[in-house]
Amino acid sequence: MPESEGEAVAELAKRRGFFFGAAGAYGGVGGFYTYGPQGAALKRSVEDAWRERFAVQEGNLEIDGPTIMPEPVFEASGHLDGFDDMIVECPACGESHRADHLIEDSTGIEEAESLPIDEVEALIAKHDLACPNCGTSLKGEAVEEFNLMFETTIGPGSSTPGYLRPETAQGIFVEFPRLKEYARNRLPFGVTQIGRAYRNEISPRKSLVRTREFTQAELEQFVDPETDEPDLSSVADIEARLYPATEQVDDDGEVIETTIGEAVEEGVIGNAWIGYYLGIAYEWYESIGVDMDRFRYRQHLAGERAHYAADCWDAEVEVDGEWIETTGFAYRSDYDLSNHAAGSDDDFTVFRQYDEPKTVEKAVVDPDMSVLGPEFGSAAADVADALQELAERDPAAFDGEEVTVEAGDSEYSVPTDVANFRVEEQTESGEHITPHVVEPSFGVDRTVYTLVAHAMHEDVVDGEERTYLDLSPTVAPTDVGVFPLVSNVDYLTERAEEIAAELRAAGFSVVHDDSGSIGRRYRRQDEVGTPFCVTVDRDGLEGDGPDSVTVRERDSAAQARVPVDDLASVLLDLRAGTRTFDDVLAEYDTVETGAEA
Amino acid sequence: MPESEGEAVAELAKRRGFFFGAAGAYGGVGGFYTYGPQGAALKRSVEDAWRERFAVQEGNLEIDGPTIMPEPVFEASGHLDGFDDMIVECPACGESHRADHLIEDSTGIEEAESLPIDEVEALIAKHDLACPNCGTSLKGEAVEEFNLMFETTIGPGSSTPGYLRPETAQGIFVEFPRLKEYARNRLPFGVTQIGRAYRNEISPRKSLVRTREFTQAELEQFVDPETDEPDLSSVADIEARLYPATEQVDDDGEVIETTIGEAVEEGVIGNAWIGYYLGIAYEWYESIGVDMDRFRYRQHLAGERAHYAADCWDAEVEVDGEWIETTGFAYRSDYDLSNHAAGSDDDFTVFRQYDEPKTVEKAVVDPDMSVLGPEFGSAAADVADALQELAERDPAAFDGEEVTVEAGDSEYSVPTDVANFRVEEQTESGEHITPHVVEPSFGVDRTVYTLVAHAMHEDVVDGEERTYLDLSPTVAPTDVGVFPLVSNVDYLTERAEEIAAELRAAGFSVVHDDSGSIGRRYRRQDEVGTPFCVTVDRDGLEGDGPDSVTVRERDSAAQARVPVDDLASVLLDLRAGTRTFDDVLAEYDTVETGAEA
Repeated sequence: MPESEGEAVAELAKRRGFFFGAAGAYGGVGGFYTYGPQGAALKRSVEDAWRERFAVQEGNLEIDGPTIMPEPVFEASGHLDGFDDMIVECPACGESHRADHLIEDSTGIEEAESLPIDEVEALIAKHDLACPNCGTSLKGEAVEEFNLMFETTIGPGSSTPGYLRPETAQGIFVEFPRLKEYARNRLPFGVTQIGRAYRNEISPRKSLVRTREFTQAELEQFVDPETDEPDLSSVADIEARLYPATEQVDDDGEVIETTIGEAVEEGVIGNAWIGYYLGIAYEWYESIGVDMDRFRYRQHLAGERAHYAADCWDAEVEVDGEWIETTGFAYRSDYDLSNHAAGSDDDFTVFRQYDEPKTVEKAVVDPDMSVLGPEFGSAAADVADALQELAERDPAAFDGEEVTVEAGDSEYSVPTDVANFRVEEQTESGEHITPHVVEPSFGVDRTVYTLVAHAMHEDVVDGEERTYLDLSPTVAPTDVGVFPLVSNVDYLTERAEEIAAELRAAGFSVVHDDSGSIGRRYRRQDEVGTPFCVTVDRDGLEGDGPDSVTVRERDSAAQARVPVDDLASVLLDLRAGTRTFDDVLAEYDTVETGAEA
Repeated sequence: MPESEGEAVAELAKRRGFFFGAAGAYGGVGGFYTYGPQGAALKRSVEDAWRERFAVQEGNLEIDGPTIMPEPVFEASGHLDGFDDMIVECPACGESHRADHLIEDSTGIEEAESLPIDEVEALIAKHDLACPNCGTSLKGEAVEEFNLMFETTIGPGSSTPGYLRPETAQGIFVEFPRLKEYARNRLPFGVTQIGRAYRNEISPRKSLVRTREFTQAELEQFVDPETDEPDLSSVADIEARLYPATEQVDDDGEVIETTIGEAVEEGVIGNAWIGYYLGIAYEWYESIGVDMDRFRYRQHLAGERAHYAADCWDAEVEVDGEWIETTGFAYRSDYDLSNHAAGSDDDFTVFRQYDEPKTVEKAVVDPDMSVLGPEFGSAAADVADALQELAERDPAAFDGEEVTVEAGDSEYSVPTDVANFRVEEQTESGEHITPHVVEPSFGVDRTVYTLVAHAMHEDVVDGEERTYLDLSPTVAPTDVGVFPLVSNVDYLTERAEEIAAELRAAGFSVVHDDSGSIGRRYRRQDEVGTPFCVTVDRDGLEGDGPDSVTVRERDSAAQARVPVDDLASVLLDLRAGTRTFDDVLAEYDTVETGAEA
């Protein structure tokens, strides 16, 4: 009965159609969830709110690419070689486990993920760790790397492997040569993508927290690292709870409360772009209804960060007594674009125009091909390229009578006068640079999970216990429930259907419900977080004045009697937050709660 | 220069950011497309418009399930065994081809897909068909079945195969036991899903028409086949172009124009539910801007239809001289739910309440387990079940002294008095039925492709040739472009940015553009189908009256001078279609077109 928060969320989520393990009729398979009608609507609202804030308002480009991508993409990105977890298989029951998690759970060692495999095997042996499933000792069992990408084959035959993208980001990076044209080759610009990503987790964790198929909302901000600075004025005063790396390693360390502006200025946040996104994300999370007392930004420790990342933070929320990551904010330098430039033949640079053209001295060669050609045959062109490369790298090499260069696997000697070395003055209007990337990467499913968990409350109304979700009107799956007070009186039901249709036409998402007692219908809407319910009753239709209905607010269960003619505008104001329910209670007659329930 | 429609669409789509082959930096791989910023917005508008019409307005439930599903789902659905294409591999170049397509292209035989494999091999030999890639004869090469599902492995090891869903529908069917509860066990109800689906096509066709990863919008309407009828009143008068099976097989057959109501009444459309959806889909396609002169409904021929399907129609659009399917409408009987009921342990039925309880005679047994137990041991319970089954199927079998039943692989004889056979009167309030399924299944990508192709026009404005897309304001990626007339005058640029921000706040999607000549900026918006452009000029800001701007309509290139205070409401009316641009030209000053361009 007194369940954990996680169990209570899972039970309500399944019963009311938010989310549940997929393909349950077939016993299901770990890590795959289906969103029911309520959850699909909530998830879509989160995505729409994200799009509005991080794509539309920021003026970024949004794209929508495939989830299957060919192997060379992941060779270049590093996922084919490096996107592994350490796995150990039980010799008795055959169950596979994450070796680093076994060590962390039993030894108090942190971040075992970063240990080399032989050390992990040694630790398993030393602590005689056993299979959590059947208890058999894992001592001496081989620990192996397991790549987390789902692999498949494109087309007939096995010649074209493909992988389900482990993040939406790669779909943005590989298209950079086209995207920069849509941005008219001007930095900074941002590109977003909302879509599925896949990780073949060894041990999917409970509910939506660690699944094998999930939805990301990612923003790749491309910047010129030398000249582009974000405008911090709009976020400088936002107060946020930060947990910097220095506090995490300090025994007395704690979460600090400070403004984004101060944190950037004092270097707590190591990069202004990261600071900017921490600021707008903070306001965004608050706007969709995350309990900000259960929210913090945690900086990555040096060991958690990739070598190319200057600064990384996670947005973390507390659910069920654990802190879970919902967003990662990373300064990724030129790592991604440089990798794809090296792995493909395309151009991943942007031309940086100088303020004024520069005159530069440039060492050039102009080799006499009528000499090189006969002498070196098919290698002549490569030799010429090697000479130019040498001229730029080491002009002094051309001081002697002869220069020696490598091309292919051979060395070639060329008389200096045949190379025609000279230093020229050139006018350059700019240079090609590889943009740096700032990446806020949001987990949509974890955000949905958080919203349900943080919204869940219990109280007593009219002497009855109830559960309700105080979801923000911004994201609630349904705006308004419309009911006849009793379901067996035709003219009440018909009028309720009319009003429901009118509210739908006015842009509300509406549920019409005439099944069961009015009390049960209120409870049903309370449990799915519908902010307002409208009830059509005899009193409202039969009096002398204009027709009226009761409007009930979810959290307080308070009710006001509102003329039908005012209904849409009252509800619009309530949804937009320009009127509170107290305002409505003050303006209209209050209905005694409990009279109808 | 005079390209085909398909080539013109592909060129514009890539240059302006609608869609292009994915991962081009790596040479790409056939059948995967990325939507750029314009295309992603257009696709999302199509999805939103579909959701509004087929989910919200119809009161259906929308879900969002995983794209990877475990093998038993596709064993039951029939995809694991039956979802194949016939493939033949060239012995010289190694390229794989669809054997049925080779035959159709070279012999005039239609629907070669339905021929048995040995016949296909014989036809290849008889006509000495050659590899379209390298010309080598394919005579004598084996034709094989190739399953079109992308396969992968879930979790470590190879024990849990998974497949990328070949249609979103299965994600609805497998969750029916939960979905019926959300629908409170009352038929009819509909469930929708918009999402990715995957088919490992042997030969992906040009552009978005046949891809390996695509987006579907599917609606599964669950009905009681005996009692549920759609309300045809809202669609009966819709006139549509139909191409019934009878006309297709008739040498003089042609597309007929008729109303949905008549077509259902006369049996041209074989099922009222199919008629209902043909009706609302017709209006929907028209509303998003499909050219209805290039649209028709084609009925499946008997040979195209699955054995369980009572009636099937395709919505077809003409693009680039070909008719392509964008939607399939199928009456699928109880095929899907019965398959999953047989393949799983879950309950895929709905309880149909009788109007009045019925008294029925029911043959029952009440076997004496104290006899069966000792006699048959562990098989006793199965024997009891078999006796009950026999009693219902063949009560006369209990007339003799002894009955014989099968359980497992053995036969068991039981004395009739031990079986305790009797006929009871039972009162039944209803019965469990397996709902039938009506399925409209929309291809989102093909719809996007159609909208771009049907919207593309060329004309001459101010003496210059231009290409423009006359996309409906319902789906256009951008509502309004806002420009300063010239880009080097600060106060014009600032005012344009202000106006852009105000329009964004009013709910418009807005592009602000100050790069290049005003003519180029108009062309750019024409090419991406932006219905209206607003230009801020000196004349509008410096006169005596209130500030004004010019508003330009895309298709006519006509311009009116509109006060800034009226701008948002004028644009709202134009977008909603409650005011035409002629109304605006009549109400405000007309600007001479060409003066500014």
